[in-house]
Amino acid sequence: MKKVLIVGGVAAGASAAARLRRLDESAEIIMFEKGEYISFANCGLPYYIGGVIEDREDLLVATPELMKDRFNIDVRTNSEVISINYKDKKISIASKDKGIYEECFDYLVLAPGAKPLKPNIPGIESKKVYTLRNVEDTDKIKSVVDEVKKAIVIGGGYIGVEMAENLREKGINVTLVEAAPHILAPFDDDLIPVAEKQMEDKGVKLVLGNGVTAFKEASDGIEVELRSGDKVKGDIVIAAIGVTPDTEFIRNSGIELGPRGHILVNENMETNIKDIYAGGDAVEVVDFVNNTKTAIPLASPANKQGRIIADNISGTNKAYKKTQGTTVIKVFDLCLAATGNNERILNRLNIPYKVAIIHPNNHAGYYPGAVQITLKLIFNDEGKILGAQALGYEGVEKRIDVIAAVIRLKGTIYDLTEMELSYAPPFGSAKDPVNFVGYVAENVLTEKSELVHPRELKNIKGNENIVVLDVRTNSERERGAVDGSIHINVNELREKLNTLDKNKEYWIHCAVGIRAYVAERILKQNGFKCKNITGGFKSILAMNYTPKGLKE
Amino acid sequence: MKKVLIVGGVAAGASAAARLRRLDESAEIIMFEKGEYISFANCGLPYYIGGVIEDREDLLVATPELMKDRFNIDVRTNSEVISINYKDKKISIASKDKGIYEECFDYLVLAPGAKPLKPNIPGIESKKVYTLRNVEDTDKIKSVVDEVKKAIVIGGGYIGVEMAENLREKGINVTLVEAAPHILAPFDDDLIPVAEKQMEDKGVKLVLGNGVTAFKEASDGIEVELRSGDKVKGDIVIAAIGVTPDTEFIRNSGIELGPRGHILVNENMETNIKDIYAGGDAVEVVDFVNNTKTAIPLASPANKQGRIIADNISGTNKAYKKTQGTTVIKVFDLCLAATGNNERILNRLNIPYKVAIIHPNNHAGYYPGAVQITLKLIFNDEGKILGAQALGYEGVEKRIDVIAAVIRLKGTIYDLTEMELSYAPPFGSAKDPVNFVGYVAENVLTEKSELVHPRELKNIKGNENIVVLDVRTNSERERGAVDGSIHINVNELREKLNTLDKNKEYWIHCAVGIRAYVAERILKQNGFKCKNITGGFKSILAMNYTPKGLKE
Repeated sequence: MKKVLIVGGVAAGASAAARLRRLDESAEIIMFEKGEYISFANCGLPYYIGGVIEDREDLLVATPELMKDRFNIDVRTNSEVISINYKDKKISIASKDKGIYEECFDYLVLAPGAKPLKPNIPGIESKKVYTLRNVEDTDKIKSVVDEVKKAIVIGGGYIGVEMAENLREKGINVTLVEAAPHILAPFDDDLIPVAEKQMEDKGVKLVLGNGVTAFKEASDGIEVELRSGDKVKGDIVIAAIGVTPDTEFIRNSGIELGPRGHILVNENMETNIKDIYAGGDAVEVVDFVNNTKTAIPLASPANKQGRIIADNISGTNKAYKKTQGTTVIKVFDLCLAATGNNERILNRLNIPYKVAIIHPNNHAGYYPGAVQITLKLIFNDEGKILGAQALGYEGVEKRIDVIAAVIRLKGTIYDLTEMELSYAPPFGSAKDPVNFVGYVAENVLTEKSELVHPRELKNIKGNENIVVLDVRTNSERERGAVDGSIHINVNELREKLNTLDKNKEYWIHCAVGIRAYVAERILKQNGFKCKNITGGFKSILAMNYTPKGLKE
Repeated sequence: MKKVLIVGGVAAGASAAARLRRLDESAEIIMFEKGEYISFANCGLPYYIGGVIEDREDLLVATPELMKDRFNIDVRTNSEVISINYKDKKISIASKDKGIYEECFDYLVLAPGAKPLKPNIPGIESKKVYTLRNVEDTDKIKSVVDEVKKAIVIGGGYIGVEMAENLREKGINVTLVEAAPHILAPFDDDLIPVAEKQMEDKGVKLVLGNGVTAFKEASDGIEVELRSGDKVKGDIVIAAIGVTPDTEFIRNSGIELGPRGHILVNENMETNIKDIYAGGDAVEVVDFVNNTKTAIPLASPANKQGRIIADNISGTNKAYKKTQGTTVIKVFDLCLAATGNNERILNRLNIPYKVAIIHPNNHAGYYPGAVQITLKLIFNDEGKILGAQALGYEGVEKRIDVIAAVIRLKGTIYDLTEMELSYAPPFGSAKDPVNFVGYVAENVLTEKSELVHPRELKNIKGNENIVVLDVRTNSERERGAVDGSIHINVNELREKLNTLDKNKEYWIHCAVGIRAYVAERILKQNGFKCKNITGGFKSILAMNYTPKGLKE
């Protein structure tokens, strides 16, 4: 009979425990959880604070009683594991009730998770600065939130954005402060301004590219001092600056940690010490696309890792095959989703790439309720898909999930063109956005089309050899145009070719890119130099949006 | 300069024409369309009749003028191609305006589509029997529909079901008659009764397993006589019995047709005659999963084929890589989607398979609005995915699209377990339904679980060696149970093992299958013979539903 100790009772830990029991009725399984609750709905906490999830019980997905009755697992809450002695195969536990004691193991599973970063900023220990990791934190915020009129959220990551949204939906005056130039780092600067605009439109003040230098508690609230010198005052602060692996108890145990404290594991999720496994937000993983080491604290990989750990402990050799970082977030009415690498990551690693951006309808345009999806594909010269990002309303994460599947199976942009996806007018189009972005990429790689990113427009200001050519209709152009651009409706282009100059290069745009491609083909086949501004005027506009910040 | 003639101006024809122009500015391209309209929204016609699509203009996706202005394509409507002379490379056209004339070609593209089947049933030529293929048909139905109080739809395929729904939504009393035992043939008998119930709940009378023997026109309407002897009376009949390729003009041309009139093509979509290509609903394709010849008249393959034809004519060798039949349909509030083969097809071809059915939530259960999806996976002993079907509300076709991508890339059920799909509470679960159904299949293939289909319950009636074991709670059981089943709550199973008999085989079920699997693992590891009834009580109930037919 093997004895398995599991440290951490949420995603990876709970998955490992349940799977292990199903594989092995005879194992002794003990789960230690530092907090009072196991298997709670991490990702639901902001929505409970906001009142979207009404019942606190709903956050508690599995109770210790259920784990006992159904899975015969000995769950010990309020039990913090404080040290590991791998040579003698035992751990020390500090229990709220039982004090400090030891427990031996045949196998140990480490799933301690990650905790909110609390950088060394003056005043950060104020009681008016809240962080959000677990049910206890949630209860604290929930107990005061109904009295809050003004809240300051520090950090524009997932939790920061979800907290800002949920507080705002409660009618609270919310300011979100982000040190980076944009919120939500998985998305590039050509999509994310749309989400930033959405947050502003919904009444969240966005302060970007501005760090916090101090928190100052006052009798009537708390003041946040910014690097810019500005000050923002609120009743409470939510510090959602990021997370760090909760692995201090592992330091000096002999189990290898990475430079930022992540547990290092092999592809079986086993640490450098035999029979000690680790999974979830506390481990370092390998990026599926670029094969470098990284940390991606998401629930979906954590759950998969827990299951794989259980398989390995039960004697089935199972490998965890890297993390691609597929992700989705609701930002008020918008949905944003992504998979694989973004431009920022690829630039950092000096990996060459190309970008295609399209804005197709989520379903047949003639069926009521069609709305545009912005879909961005990042790929390389061999047709390998490096990443994808999408933004819109309905059907956004569906397209990212399909592309995520293609990336996982090492399909190429050519495979995207061949995907046979479901179509009926209420759900899609005969050429699905996934096919469509594949077509665009194929046209690039087969040299039918050359794309230029709207970001590059700023580099050609004053360059007389490059002319921006708008091929939209008159009425579209009247509603806004690129400075200095010339205009020929695509439908009249063939007859007006003689007005163009073969010594110049034309950067063509329409509204979203479809007509510009037609124009590009006409020009190219007539001997003109030209490129298509990917994403068209819609992407040009999106890139030009700047949040108002603290103005007004 | 090449001259390309295109016969048919809708999906495949229009796609081929536009792509061809983008690849070749110099080609002469003439498109012949028998009807008055090209590139119309086929799939939107029922919704325009129902008033969901309000503006008739919305049906006309591209006009001849646009094709001329933007693509320099000579579109000739009301121009029926009546014969092909491949030796001299010319065709004869019967034009409404110009009479009969000939046109020569370098390349010919045949995309004539399919037309409604009109089987030889007495009275089918009545003016009160309508079919629906194009805008002209639509206009005819639209011109009378506001006066219709009672309509009879013959045929429960896509068009029949969509017409029934749209007529019903207009407040019309609708009876749908289907000769097969169930509507919507792509779906098996374990899912489709849920859609049938939905149609009944919305007020459509469903007459299944009953053919039409005659239509009898009366002064006040039309009477449909059924094989059963029953008669149904209505103001109009919509005959949506199926489609047949509209290829009579090709017969005896030397271009090979299949046994049911489909144009035969190679993987370049070229017919047996060089430089003559064909695509769309009129061609025979190869089934991606089982590699037999088939015809799958869907818009998505048609569009892809048109594009591939253009590439081949322009000198880029492009293959169309078979059709997997991915499909989706709205049935009132429900969404049904499928990809690959269903059980009916596999049984016909004697291909062995296994079935797993799950009913997970579309997104995190603790986030408001979660609804169940029924997801059925069909796979074989090697882990190959043969097909999938799903039914529910939100997020149904997303899961089918992901599985369709995996099938297309020849992934296995093991790959489903590794898919890294987007998760946030409003959009999914950390273990997505796609992962989940992969886990179930993996458990089957690694002999952790044996599934039995609820269909098999009827075969064990009176068999004393097999006992149905319900592991749900008392309150669940009180709301309905399988006749003759015994009951032990899964949470009490370990302590009640001594009440079970090792000489018997237990078929375990819970509500959807999760607890039954836990129970199965407990029993198996304790030496009991047992199986898990896949899909649980929810699937058992679904299979037991029978429409009321003409009763009441």
